[in-house]
Amino acid sequence: MDIVIIGGVAAGAKAAAKIKRLLPDAKVSIYTDDTHVSYSSCGLPYYIEGNFSDYRALLVRSVEEFNAAGIDVFLETRVEKILIPQQQVLAVGKVGTRLVNYDKLIIATGARPFIPNIKGINDFKNIFTLRKIEDGIKIRQKMLKSKHVVIIGSGFIGLELLEAFVKNGLDVVVIEKNNRIMSAFDEDMSDLIRKRLEAIPERKFRFYTGETVSEFIGTSYEVETVKTTSGKEFKTDLVILSAGIVPNSEIAQDAGIKIGNSKAIKVNKLMQTSAPNIYACGDCCEEHHLINGHSVLGPLGSTANKEGRCAAMNAAGIYTVFEGVLGSAVSRCLNTTMSMTGFTEKEAKSFGYTPVTAVVSKTDMVSYMPEAGEITLKVVADKVTGLLLGGQAIGSIGADKRINSLASALVGHLTVNEYKNSDFTYSPPYSPTIDPILDAMNILCSKLARHC
Amino acid sequence: MDIVIIGGVAAGAKAAAKIKRLLPDAKVSIYTDDTHVSYSSCGLPYYIEGNFSDYRALLVRSVEEFNAAGIDVFLETRVEKILIPQQQVLAVGKVGTRLVNYDKLIIATGARPFIPNIKGINDFKNIFTLRKIEDGIKIRQKMLKSKHVVIIGSGFIGLELLEAFVKNGLDVVVIEKNNRIMSAFDEDMSDLIRKRLEAIPERKFRFYTGETVSEFIGTSYEVETVKTTSGKEFKTDLVILSAGIVPNSEIAQDAGIKIGNSKAIKVNKLMQTSAPNIYACGDCCEEHHLINGHSVLGPLGSTANKEGRCAAMNAAGIYTVFEGVLGSAVSRCLNTTMSMTGFTEKEAKSFGYTPVTAVVSKTDMVSYMPEAGEITLKVVADKVTGLLLGGQAIGSIGADKRINSLASALVGHLTVNEYKNSDFTYSPPYSPTIDPILDAMNILCSKLARHC
Repeated sequence: MDIVIIGGVAAGAKAAAKIKRLLPDAKVSIYTDDTHVSYSSCGLPYYIEGNFSDYRALLVRSVEEFNAAGIDVFLETRVEKILIPQQQVLAVGKVGTRLVNYDKLIIATGARPFIPNIKGINDFKNIFTLRKIEDGIKIRQKMLKSKHVVIIGSGFIGLELLEAFVKNGLDVVVIEKNNRIMSAFDEDMSDLIRKRLEAIPERKFRFYTGETVSEFIGTSYEVETVKTTSGKEFKTDLVILSAGIVPNSEIAQDAGIKIGNSKAIKVNKLMQTSAPNIYACGDCCEEHHLINGHSVLGPLGSTANKEGRCAAMNAAGIYTVFEGVLGSAVSRCLNTTMSMTGFTEKEAKSFGYTPVTAVVSKTDMVSYMPEAGEITLKVVADKVTGLLLGGQAIGSIGADKRINSLASALVGHLTVNEYKNSDFTYSPPYSPTIDPILDAMNILCSKLARHC
Repeated sequence: MDIVIIGGVAAGAKAAAKIKRLLPDAKVSIYTDDTHVSYSSCGLPYYIEGNFSDYRALLVRSVEEFNAAGIDVFLETRVEKILIPQQQVLAVGKVGTRLVNYDKLIIATGARPFIPNIKGINDFKNIFTLRKIEDGIKIRQKMLKSKHVVIIGSGFIGLELLEAFVKNGLDVVVIEKNNRIMSAFDEDMSDLIRKRLEAIPERKFRFYTGETVSEFIGTSYEVETVKTTSGKEFKTDLVILSAGIVPNSEIAQDAGIKIGNSKAIKVNKLMQTSAPNIYACGDCCEEHHLINGHSVLGPLGSTANKEGRCAAMNAAGIYTVFEGVLGSAVSRCLNTTMSMTGFTEKEAKSFGYTPVTAVVSKTDMVSYMPEAGEITLKVVADKVTGLLLGGQAIGSIGADKRINSLASALVGHLTVNEYKNSDFTYSPPYSPTIDPILDAMNILCSKLARHC
């Protein structure tokens, strides 16, 4: 049995390892256009920051380890075409050009950074995106020789890199085309993120929201000035493009495999695509949202691992279901934890719910403890059914604890009434006597009178 | 309408404040034999440790605040008898002796430390229990002049005080009659707690398990030597008795109110006792276990608050249900977080389940992060139904995050299969790519094959 896996960062690497364990006699091959296989892309901002000095800490399994397990890895080899009727793929690269047979094909091509159409964007060597190991190495090298950086985009990666640059002493300018930073969050919460960050004394970073970059200007092979449509100009030593990602689904689309509205590959809960014997997993495919079943894009290493495992098991003939995602995410920027799960208020509205919300600002442990930090928790519920829909929390690291509790409640499709007296752990260094979640539930109860 | 509340630490104070808001015209009175009202008893170990210098940080609402809200507080006044047919209580103390009428009575008498029957236990001034504000003040004063302390009992309070004493430079001996410390946890987990604590370099504390104190010996009014039945002798400057608690239910029992096997007052989910117009809440009453409905004792400030609120609402005529507890608890001792929810393996067995377990030891965030700590998570599920039954986690502060997620899953009565792919937040400073909970679910799935 020939198992071919396209892509080998998170989902592909996981799928390969899993299927080889399930089918020891199968021939399992990973084809990837990358120079590395099986690594933690999410760790690159922390490598750049200098939390560890050797980028190899990011590598999960080496090519040698794959080989030792009986898995072939073809680096720098791009699969250019999937031939569905022939059950073959066309691979081009280091190994030359070859047609490879498959019995089962797993597409794990991931995603790539979105490149906005800006004048001069292709002309300079100091404009970086962050996705692969080399990107991280190059950014770190350049950062160590730089004083000024412009980050375009203020999502999770933009703010993680902001932290990295600030901790390395650079002056940072963040340019965001939306009217607020971290726009995955509701407006009130993203305002709060900005307020917390801008309250840092003697900060060396500035946010420019509602600004679009119009042009990169440089005198030689490097950008020296970033210009915006409103006429602002920023001198810089390097530029980071962190303006979102695009799923690498073209090869699937080209083969006639069904693609979703998000431009990612459509899969069912067994990670099967619309084509026979072809599975997809990781950032190149869509997820089902656990709350309402809608298709969403949830490009995350944790999800990629689960999907890779599920695809491998089903490809090996073991029925397994991956139910879907909640959009849970967390990120750290300097002193601020930003954590979310489920629907935001605006998402809930867009899906036709009538959201009610509770916002609680409170210490994350009893306030007399010297380590106490502040968190603001927003919980969203549905006025019609009383169902919990989502949560967002900003503040100290304790914010993330509350969001993971809420994520578990969302997995159980709990209502506010069912969750309102939950028995969380309590001790002064861990929680106030009444946890912020419980305060939020009490507020929601009063707004949902007939459900509580 | 006359509302009388007996006891005013957590449940009583909450009930008083809530019912006065619901029934502004009612006469609400708190009678307590304590010198203080409305305080965080759980914070006393942290006061003793020196996290804050003024014990008044522990006070939630002052007598003046209660008075301003129209609530009468009678300190140092003990209710000696409940006269059910007359709807009166007999109060004796600072206000003299008086009969007080009630339309609704809320019993929130709390619990008291268990005093073991040891020779000399009543003869000395330097044997302390920790429950009330004065206890904390006296222990701190004595600690500051002491070099050696013996703690009898190694539960939550014993280990919290161990931390306080160690941080203040004392030599600590802990004597535990069970064969292991923190016996609320399963054996493997309590062994791990001991191992972690004993791995602290140059530690100034020692555990003696399977030891019973036989005698306190002193030359004047102070204990100088603690003797065990096995013949060990420990020189000491003070002794802490933290050998468990006893609910203050005698006054209810004396009045003919139904008492449970745990010796605490029996209540229904509306916090009603067996007597008309009499409610109970807090450490003096039993809780319903959320998983199987059994009566259990869950003496915790967080639970007391919820029960006080529920009792007040029902007493005010607003139907509200308190479904019960999971036995969730957390405590910190030096570098170790100890957190639990639901049933331990041994409890699950005692309730007739056939428990299967998964134990995962892992970093609490991606291992290349410099702040990464270790946690060990044990999850218990039922082999027959696949239902999750409980979890215990030991290690860094991240242990508590996982237990609160599991607590939420237990509130939802989730099975391993329903919880196995939960979408937790992921980012290197917050979680490994595969969260320890998910590893545990995978292990449980393989043990519960037909359920997954």
